[in-house]
Amino acid sequence: MESRNQAYIGLDLGGTFLKYALADEKGGILIKSKRPSQGDQKKEAIFSNIFFAIDEMAQAAQARQLEIAAIGMGSPGAIDYNQCRLLGNTPNLPDWGDAEIRKEIGKHYPFPIWADNDANVAALAEVRQGAARGYKYVIAITLGTGIGGGVIINDEIFRGSHFSGAELGHMSIDYNGLPCGCGGVGCIEAYASAPAMVRNYVGKLQKSRTMVPSMVNTELIFANAQNGDQAAMQVIDETCEYLGAALASFTNIFNPEIFVIGGGVADAGDEFMTRIWNALVKRAMDAPLRNLKLVRAHLGNDAGVVGAICLAMDAVRAAKITR
Amino acid sequence: MESRNQAYIGLDLGGTFLKYALADEKGGILIKSKRPSQGDQKKEAIFSNIFFAIDEMAQAAQARQLEIAAIGMGSPGAIDYNQCRLLGNTPNLPDWGDAEIRKEIGKHYPFPIWADNDANVAALAEVRQGAARGYKYVIAITLGTGIGGGVIINDEIFRGSHFSGAELGHMSIDYNGLPCGCGGVGCIEAYASAPAMVRNYVGKLQKSRTMVPSMVNTELIFANAQNGDQAAMQVIDETCEYLGAALASFTNIFNPEIFVIGGGVADAGDEFMTRIWNALVKRAMDAPLRNLKLVRAHLGNDAGVVGAICLAMDAVRAAKITR
Repeated sequence: MESRNQAYIGLDLGGTFLKYALADEKGGILIKSKRPSQGDQKKEAIFSNIFFAIDEMAQAAQARQLEIAAIGMGSPGAIDYNQCRLLGNTPNLPDWGDAEIRKEIGKHYPFPIWADNDANVAALAEVRQGAARGYKYVIAITLGTGIGGGVIINDEIFRGSHFSGAELGHMSIDYNGLPCGCGGVGCIEAYASAPAMVRNYVGKLQKSRTMVPSMVNTELIFANAQNGDQAAMQVIDETCEYLGAALASFTNIFNPEIFVIGGGVADAGDEFMTRIWNALVKRAMDAPLRNLKLVRAHLGNDAGVVGAICLAMDAVRAAKITR
Repeated sequence: MESRNQAYIGLDLGGTFLKYALADEKGGILIKSKRPSQGDQKKEAIFSNIFFAIDEMAQAAQARQLEIAAIGMGSPGAIDYNQCRLLGNTPNLPDWGDAEIRKEIGKHYPFPIWADNDANVAALAEVRQGAARGYKYVIAITLGTGIGGGVIINDEIFRGSHFSGAELGHMSIDYNGLPCGCGGVGCIEAYASAPAMVRNYVGKLQKSRTMVPSMVNTELIFANAQNGDQAAMQVIDETCEYLGAALASFTNIFNPEIFVIGGGVADAGDEFMTRIWNALVKRAMDAPLRNLKLVRAHLGNDAGVVGAICLAMDAVRAAKITR
């Protein structure tokens, strides 16, 4: 009997959706799908969605005569990569805390299972298949409801001593500044996340006694700025300065080769990126600026599931080397 | 002929002094000495001091029937660890920029030569022989004329993509704050270095129309605070908040096991450390705080020369493993 070609299953768990995909042995996506994650339900419900997704992908692999080499998964929260289990809680999936990902999946499937924090796997995705391909020192920042960070050092995910590192959204840019949901003071997330931009805009409108639209989001702010709305233009100016200050500090601290900026806010476009870059250059030290690049993320909403696949591929490759 | 026991030479280059030592095969210091580095002179003068120091240590080794296994050196500036040469300039040694440490020393001596940034080797010293022995994720901060940083990740010095990383003194704690000598804005060095504390104190005295002593240094500030001087007490309060904010960000970013605080300002004592710790705890996230420690550096002025020896020992050990 011939040995079958290999395939990987990738899972991207979010508060609302579970995205999943089957990839070939080179990490190319063959099929992808999504279903509600039921993140507000009990662990068992979330796991049953995960099992459903794995079943679907395993059948798709069988139909293609492919053998599953490993399952990779990205999840919110701090994850012990060695044990593949959650450490503590995840605000958007209230019962998911301390979930034993590898152990529970391993009860039902014979495949090797790897899991890591969703921001970490998204960063890995951009390095392996996206905007940072070929780079070994990468900082990926996701601008959305929060500000997520993934750090790649010497081609590997940086996890910190207890899997709680790379919380880049919780670096303070003002020791005496805005309170942050994390309990800290002046975190960049409190200044440049989508909700922070909205708060900033609404505040400016109220201050100038301008009527506040019933629905304000970052798309509206960027559109209004385009149409010459002073308050919206100011919010974007300020956001670029906040982000420039944060990225300048990351530049001095990490000396990365490249920043990859993703998330909904980053979709505002290249001019927004240029302005963040200019604010960064104004503030960072000369030496680490010398070889630095800043680019937009390429993988968009697929980053999580692609990263989960890359995580599994990296683990399988590492196991082959040490064997 | 029997094979001789091995020894290491460590060199710690500063703007004023070149410190150097001979260590046994376990890194224990046998003898140490120092001489003017002539850091304000031409490269040749600085190198001739280095050669003098190596000659002295090599003779001491011979007298003890020891064989030099390697030379390690710490130097200001960004250093290409692979090539052991300076990248760019060093403010306190104006002609030292681009110095080819390994190449020049190698012309005169047959020993393997390793060099790295002085803050990096000082951090390594605390990990191998000082306050952070046994820890693998360490952040060493030196509070002095500047604020230096060394980062140890998974038991190795973190250097960044182009040997310009770990400039921890140049993380901003206020995007709209004090200008820093590096060209940045709000760097922690502009708030909590010794000169920054002195500036802060003198400013407060002038504001309250109190006579400014002819000689203000951090020792005076700590002594005056002890005696109830309100301005001095405020300066120390504020310095602890600045440092607490910076260390909280490093906690969230790096998830280290331990902070090691050294330098002249750290000699103020344990109460100062406790107050920095309290400010840190107030601001950092729960998860990375869980296993965190903060301690004073143990090696004091010897950190540079001990670190240089440890650097050489690590390199020799790594070479044996890969051979």
